[in-house]
Amino acid sequence: MQQYDLPIEELKRYKPNLTRAEDFRDFWTSTQAAALGHESNVLLREVAYPSNGVNVYELSYLGFGNNVVKGWYAVPKSDAPHPGLAVFHGYNWSYEGQIHEIVNLALHGYATFGMQTRGQQGSEDNLISPHGHHAGWMTKGILDKESYYYLGIYMDAVLAMEVLAQRPEVDSSRIGVTGASQGGGITLAVAALSKIPRVAVAGYPYLCHFRRAVDVAQSMPYLEINQFFRRNMDPMVEETAMKTLSYFDVMNLAPWITCPVLVSIGLIDDITPPSTVFAAFNHLKCPKEICYYRYFGHEYIPAFETERLSTLKRYLQDCTVPQ
Amino acid sequence: MQQYDLPIEELKRYKPNLTRAEDFRDFWTSTQAAALGHESNVLLREVAYPSNGVNVYELSYLGFGNNVVKGWYAVPKSDAPHPGLAVFHGYNWSYEGQIHEIVNLALHGYATFGMQTRGQQGSEDNLISPHGHHAGWMTKGILDKESYYYLGIYMDAVLAMEVLAQRPEVDSSRIGVTGASQGGGITLAVAALSKIPRVAVAGYPYLCHFRRAVDVAQSMPYLEINQFFRRNMDPMVEETAMKTLSYFDVMNLAPWITCPVLVSIGLIDDITPPSTVFAAFNHLKCPKEICYYRYFGHEYIPAFETERLSTLKRYLQDCTVPQ
Amino acid sequence: MQQYDLPIEELKRYKPNLTRAEDFRDFWTSTQAAALGHESNVLLREVAYPSNGVNVYELSYLGFGNNVVKGWYAVPKSDAPHPGLAVFHGYNWSYEGQIHEIVNLALHGYATFGMQTRGQQGSEDNLISPHGHHAGWMTKGILDKESYYYLGIYMDAVLAMEVLAQRPEVDSSRIGVTGASQGGGITLAVAALSKIPRVAVAGYPYLCHFRRAVDVAQSMPYLEINQFFRRNMDPMVEETAMKTLSYFDVMNLAPWITCPVLVSIGLIDDITPPSTVFAAFNHLKCPKEICYYRYFGHEYIPAFETERLSTLKRYLQDCTVPQ
Amino acid sequence: MQQYDLPIEELKRYKPNLTRAEDFRDFWTSTQAAALGHESNVLLREVAYPSNGVNVYELSYLGFGNNVVKGWYAVPKSDAPHPGLAVFHGYNWSYEGQIHEIVNLALHGYATFGMQTRGQQGSEDNLISPHGHHAGWMTKGILDKESYYYLGIYMDAVLAMEVLAQRPEVDSSRIGVTGASQGGGITLAVAALSKIPRVAVAGYPYLCHFRRAVDVAQSMPYLEINQFFRRNMDPMVEETAMKTLSYFDVMNLAPWITCPVLVSIGLIDDITPPSTVFAAFNHLKCPKEICYYRYFGHEYIPAFETERLSTLKRYLQDCTVPQ
Amino acid sequence: MQQYDLPIEELKRYKPNLTRAEDFRDFWTSTQAAALGHESNVLLREVAYPSNGVNVYELSYLGFGNNVVKGWYAVPKSDAPHPGLAVFHGYNWSYEGQIHEIVNLALHGYATFGMQTRGQQGSEDNLISPHGHHAGWMTKGILDKESYYYLGIYMDAVLAMEVLAQRPEVDSSRIGVTGASQGGGITLAVAALSKIPRVAVAGYPYLCHFRRAVDVAQSMPYLEINQFFRRNMDPMVEETAMKTLSYFDVMNLAPWITCPVLVSIGLIDDITPPSTVFAAFNHLKCPKEICYYRYFGHEYIPAFETERLSTLKRYLQDCTVPQ
Amino acid sequence: MQQYDLPIEELKRYKPNLTRAEDFRDFWTSTQAAALGHESNVLLREVAYPSNGVNVYELSYLGFGNNVVKGWYAVPKSDAPHPGLAVFHGYNWSYEGQIHEIVNLALHGYATFGMQTRGQQGSEDNLISPHGHHAGWMTKGILDKESYYYLGIYMDAVLAMEVLAQRPEVDSSRIGVTGASQGGGITLAVAALSKIPRVAVAGYPYLCHFRRAVDVAQSMPYLEINQFFRRNMDPMVEETAMKTLSYFDVMNLAPWITCPVLVSIGLIDDITPPSTVFAAFNHLKCPKEICYYRYFGHEYIPAFETERLSTLKRYLQDCTVPQ
Repeated sequence: MQQYDLPIEELKRYKPNLTRAEDFRDFWTSTQAAALGHESNVLLREVAYPSNGVNVYELSYLGFGNNVVKGWYAVPKSDAPHPGLAVFHGYNWSYEGQIHEIVNLALHGYATFGMQTRGQQGSEDNLISPHGHHAGWMTKGILDKESYYYLGIYMDAVLAMEVLAQRPEVDSSRIGVTGASQGGGITLAVAALSKIPRVAVAGYPYLCHFRRAVDVAQSMPYLEINQFFRRNMDPMVEETAMKTLSYFDVMNLAPWITCPVLVSIGLIDDITPPSTVFAAFNHLKCPKEICYYRYFGHEYIPAFETERLSTLKRYLQDCTVPQ
Repeated sequence: MQQYDLPIEELKRYKPNLTRAEDFRDFWTSTQAAALGHESNVLLREVAYPSNGVNVYELSYLGFGNNVVKGWYAVPKSDAPHPGLAVFHGYNWSYEGQIHEIVNLALHGYATFGMQTRGQQGSEDNLISPHGHHAGWMTKGILDKESYYYLGIYMDAVLAMEVLAQRPEVDSSRIGVTGASQGGGITLAVAALSKIPRVAVAGYPYLCHFRRAVDVAQSMPYLEINQFFRRNMDPMVEETAMKTLSYFDVMNLAPWITCPVLVSIGLIDDITPPSTVFAAFNHLKCPKEICYYRYFGHEYIPAFETERLSTLKRYLQDCTVPQ
Repeated sequence: MQQYDLPIEELKRYKPNLTRAEDFRDFWTSTQAAALGHESNVLLREVAYPSNGVNVYELSYLGFGNNVVKGWYAVPKSDAPHPGLAVFHGYNWSYEGQIHEIVNLALHGYATFGMQTRGQQGSEDNLISPHGHHAGWMTKGILDKESYYYLGIYMDAVLAMEVLAQRPEVDSSRIGVTGASQGGGITLAVAALSKIPRVAVAGYPYLCHFRRAVDVAQSMPYLEINQFFRRNMDPMVEETAMKTLSYFDVMNLAPWITCPVLVSIGLIDDITPPSTVFAAFNHLKCPKEICYYRYFGHEYIPAFETERLSTLKRYLQDCTVPQ
Repeated sequence: MQQYDLPIEELKRYKPNLTRAEDFRDFWTSTQAAALGHESNVLLREVAYPSNGVNVYELSYLGFGNNVVKGWYAVPKSDAPHPGLAVFHGYNWSYEGQIHEIVNLALHGYATFGMQTRGQQGSEDNLISPHGHHAGWMTKGILDKESYYYLGIYMDAVLAMEVLAQRPEVDSSRIGVTGASQGGGITLAVAALSKIPRVAVAGYPYLCHFRRAVDVAQSMPYLEINQFFRRNMDPMVEETAMKTLSYFDVMNLAPWITCPVLVSIGLIDDITPPSTVFAAFNHLKCPKEICYYRYFGHEYIPAFETERLSTLKRYLQDCTVPQ
Repeated sequence: MQQYDLPIEELKRYKPNLTRAEDFRDFWTSTQAAALGHESNVLLREVAYPSNGVNVYELSYLGFGNNVVKGWYAVPKSDAPHPGLAVFHGYNWSYEGQIHEIVNLALHGYATFGMQTRGQQGSEDNLISPHGHHAGWMTKGILDKESYYYLGIYMDAVLAMEVLAQRPEVDSSRIGVTGASQGGGITLAVAALSKIPRVAVAGYPYLCHFRRAVDVAQSMPYLEINQFFRRNMDPMVEETAMKTLSYFDVMNLAPWITCPVLVSIGLIDDITPPSTVFAAFNHLKCPKEICYYRYFGHEYIPAFETERLSTLKRYLQDCTVPQ
Repeated sequence: MQQYDLPIEELKRYKPNLTRAEDFRDFWTSTQAAALGHESNVLLREVAYPSNGVNVYELSYLGFGNNVVKGWYAVPKSDAPHPGLAVFHGYNWSYEGQIHEIVNLALHGYATFGMQTRGQQGSEDNLISPHGHHAGWMTKGILDKESYYYLGIYMDAVLAMEVLAQRPEVDSSRIGVTGASQGGGITLAVAALSKIPRVAVAGYPYLCHFRRAVDVAQSMPYLEINQFFRRNMDPMVEETAMKTLSYFDVMNLAPWITCPVLVSIGLIDDITPPSTVFAAFNHLKCPKEICYYRYFGHEYIPAFETERLSTLKRYLQDCTVPQ
């Protein structure tokens, strides 16, 4: 794969208009109010893990609509309080190896919670869609913002921040969020919708600028949306679905973020096209930095791992005073 | 693709042991009892369709757990009563053109109902799984037979038979079931679980002999199950999931079918491997016939369409006396 | 596959110059005169088909150069006269299931003839090319318009209209033509070259604007022409072949059509590129409509099937008075 | 591609029964009699070619049914008479560079004629099939041995031997035949059907043991036959076609060859499976040798080029006395 | 990819004969003597890395033939001595992210050295081959054991053990070796050729049972060997090369290993076929365990990561007394 | 593959700035001086080859840094002196059949030497890189012009010209150079760096305009450079490597060529993109011609073979007086 999206000079200034609906702010204000007003029922179950440096738990709590959200929680054995870190995984991914990633971040000194995204292998998904969808989750409930799949995930993640902030071993003034792909999109959404994060590091974030994504992405899962449109003969379906997506578009949420943000993108990424990522990035109003990589696609980028660890360390470890 | 499964001589005698659990019969007896004891709430909404020979409706009813199940219902304009026909579609497919298939069968003289399978584009899926799954539906709720995705579908289909039998324009003694791939699997499951069908025609049926399917299928969607096993480090997961699947395995249900059955399979089918289809077919105890095609894979087979129409006509149209 | 051809706004106004040779009109005038002046020798052989609503025949007649052209002919059992319909199939396709398509259209009320295109599985091809060609038919006889493969097909199709118009059970004032891909191209060619059709419905028509097609098509069979050029070291070959193709280019024939035309095209069609289809469409001078589909390629489009049936019904069934 | 056919030990003894029909010998006796009884009308047209060592011509003659067969004819400028060599090209191939191959063989000392196979780019194909076929030529006229495509080619090739033997500059007692793939199959067929060849060198010959070929070949063009069977709903078609093929099966012709034969085959050849080649080779009764190559597929094999040139030189150059 | 190699029951007893040449032991005895008798010239250069728990260095030393071998060396900041760990990377891989893997193992408590394999991105390769090779390294110098590429790597790795054992911060009685794919093969080779390792953990090891590997591997890089054989017309080349490989075949080295060994293999691994791995494993005479995974190919296997960390911890951390 | 690079009109005027470093001329002046000042040690070993017209040898000599360079040398048996021809092969290619190509050119009258490129199957490569590289040779030693892989090849080729010019059977005033792909790049480099060639014919030359090549090439091996950049986290690596490449860029060497040059390029070549070839061609100041082929990619082009032979004949055979 060679470059297929805009050249880097255009990407840097690519800032399409937001596509927020009139009730965008109202929707999120009332949704968050509803989400936060319930008991979390946090439960910890210790998990054997072959490492001397951390304690590992399966942590569960009640998410949006009281589903049971699970995840791995790894805590350094050194003296508390620790800075906290919430990690979100990629699409259709989950447990596959994630426990090791969580432990490694804990070995770096963070009380780290890796949320298992609802529906995707780990946690219960209790949102019921009044209509069917294409295989995958991108179009589950897409005809109404109240039933859309990512409503549950965004709110589960916001609640995860609350859970982390209330842990006694965590310094609630030093909590960060991070993830890549779907996890990068959730990272930015949480940074916009929760007051807790002090820093957000998003690798090649998904869920940005859907309108362009369906036109330029070359590989799944954005294309599930295209597939959904193929299955419906009613032309209103596309308009309705696009309106729903506008509420969950990270580009539309981006201006609300206030904490520092670090983003990465590979310039030959054919799953989360660079222009969709820059579209969101260019709407950020917070302290921000983007690392782009000419020769990388949608994949682990070693050089960015150093940047990620540096940024997390700077904002969560090197200062012990709240920012 | 060339032949990769057993040669035809071995297929003809391939009859592995059933994998029924001890409570197999009890499970289905109690499940059916529960399913049948509720109101159907059948609603019809007329749909404009450019044909002089049929009336077309969107028909909905309450399915298993009271979800709203929708489908196309096409009725010949000629004098009632008509023989009835229930049609089930393939996996991840749904609306895409199905209305025309339903209409064409109605033009052949059947009051035809094409059920939109829950979750897959058309109908509401209200079963909540306590755990996540791989993209698609094969592993949704797979760790417990009470939450497994196909429980809802099988029961929705059994209820569709009731709905059809109670339609005033339908001769309830002449109702058939048909479908291909997933629809072929559902066809056989319904023929086993409902007393209503007088004939069942299943094209390259899916959902047969899961244990072998995960080992020999070359293409999705059986392989979603394999993918699910990759995501779980706990070895008990495979055993638990395989037990759940045993309840829904069409091979295990096959001996209960009493109406005549016609089955097709392409010998180079890499999605529903021929051996899985023969495994189920060889356990049928009813009048039965199988058409196999050396040069066809998982696809529409024109020669079988003639066989299908002949068989439906023979059992549903050529005799007007109940069999 | 994502969009690779012109954007829809440009497609709508894409109207390249015609590439007619000076003797374009003369060629077709004399060719048609020659084609029409012979006996048709229509023969019908009844075919068993499991449907109560239609009679099905294999119909044969003498085509261009007196080859035997065969096809399926299905006639409603209801009272004659019926509107007539000629159907043309896709490239390298033929019998595969076509009989069912013909029957289904007859069940809609049309005396329907599905011509088996010469050479392609069904009918005899008696045009002899003085030179060889690439596998397939696109370059058979391509160095001379008198020996080019599609000369036979276009004339066979024109003669099919005559055969249909002379059937006693057909109302010769209500005959339509339809087909997709190669069948769509033939549909438009016949509408231009025969006075008989009252309406033409062409799905993603092939055989349009060859000069652009060889440059933008991504998949066979236009690319057979490119392959042919690879095999010839003589640079005159390309020029000569392109001149031959100009006589058969549906874009050049389009202005002659007078009956209403309905066309479809998927915007990600990589076999019959959208620009080649719009090039022909934009040269139509008759009542016309085009349905384009953003998320479809070269494939069956369910929503268009409704449009097709509606248009045929409007012009062939809803009025019984000749237009 | 790794080995997929029989292991070498089994290949060496793989000798399935011949599949000759009862009138196999009669058919070829009468066919050859008919073919040989006509005027050849040999014409030469000199062609400019940038080499000092050879004269190059386009040579044409009348083939089977009086079609015009063309080819390149290259003659060494050294003193005549020269040994003669007929070369047959691969399927769907023809002119592409073949002139250089012909010239190079002439530079080795042979008066070399490269026949352009009828229909395939070069020569006129005047056999008319009463039915259509799949794209390509494998099934053209396949329902009757009198109209089958390779009838024309085999006889054209036999006639090419006559043409070559009658050239004044050729020593008719030293004429060889060679070719690869389709050309290898024709080479063996000609060696069986003509008395002229003194040696035959066939690279990975095609057209051997069709019954097995359709079952084990992984890539075109044998699979055109499989595709043809898909397009016909009538089960008699396969039987009829297979009987036709039996007349042209090089395995059935092999026992008639009397001149020495050298054959090559790559053991990972997925187009002409090794077992089909050994099936023919093991039925040869003449002096014979086979070179097999573990790491080669259907492709140019440099080591065999040395073997080929050695064998041709031994039988055609190193002895000047007729054998 | 589905299973293509032997079934698990056969794998468990698959123990082909060793292919050691007569001077196998002599070769390695003299080679090691030569390798160990030189100065190491260890140099450390501190590298900035964003972690509070480790110090990271680029460590270099003189390898086999005095090339400069480089690698990452990460040391826990906690009190020395630490257990030591040598890590070897996969084929054609190197720096790409490896620094993070090294650091993470150091965070687990090991003074960890990740050797950059010579030639492959990282370190100097000073072995000169008297002949060329196929792209890649598998056939570099393959015609003589003294020039074969892996001679340098195996000896560099043996020397890495010496370097590690001599580090003041390392407890030389608690040093392990680990790696996957090529790194797994090197891990086992070093365990056989060096006295230092106390435990070896090899993920899906490469370089085992070459004779079978070239026959069953489906994907590079074993197939470089096959490609090399294609390029040589001399049949002796294969025999000579296979003899060279026998000295480096981990299967032949396996019986020399005395420390405990843990191995993993995915049963659908098409790069290092399961049978090649079991062939080596079944020749081990030391305490040993193999974890096999039905649904995994040549890839990171999360469940095995837990096993790997457990085994390393057991032998290197849980006992502080030398074994 | 369809056209993806610039349209032909733009290609014809595509002339980017040269990227020569300041010491470009000095580097080559001193390098050539060093290369030419050593003994060649030419050795000939006769090779059996089945042809009466030529004598064939394996010729070896000492190349750049005194490695042993080997090659095939074929000499016409006719009276000396003969014009000489040096042939260079494609990337990762070598012996595979090349001997036959060399012999065929000798049969055309040239004393032909086919150099086996160092490292690639044939000859010894004695340049040691102080760092590793990606599989293949494109990045071997790329961080320093003194160690870069192609330094050795270019100088080996320049020395081959000296060897050929000193052969007694060769007329040193009539020596040409030719090759395709990598061999085409070497052909042009030698024409620029050696005074000996009287004509150069380069088929779709590689090694031109690297900066653009890494951006537009779609297939290996230019992309090895991209892969190399992926493996290095240090951004200086790209700049350093690109500077090294500038010394070996055929575009930068092109203006030094004085003999006539013939070049070919296929317009759908995705390995050596047309724009990179035109970039070099448009910087030639000598008599020059380019043949471009719309329907060809990176492959043998029969029509160009005629052009190649004509041009060689014109400059090397048709005049016997030195030019």
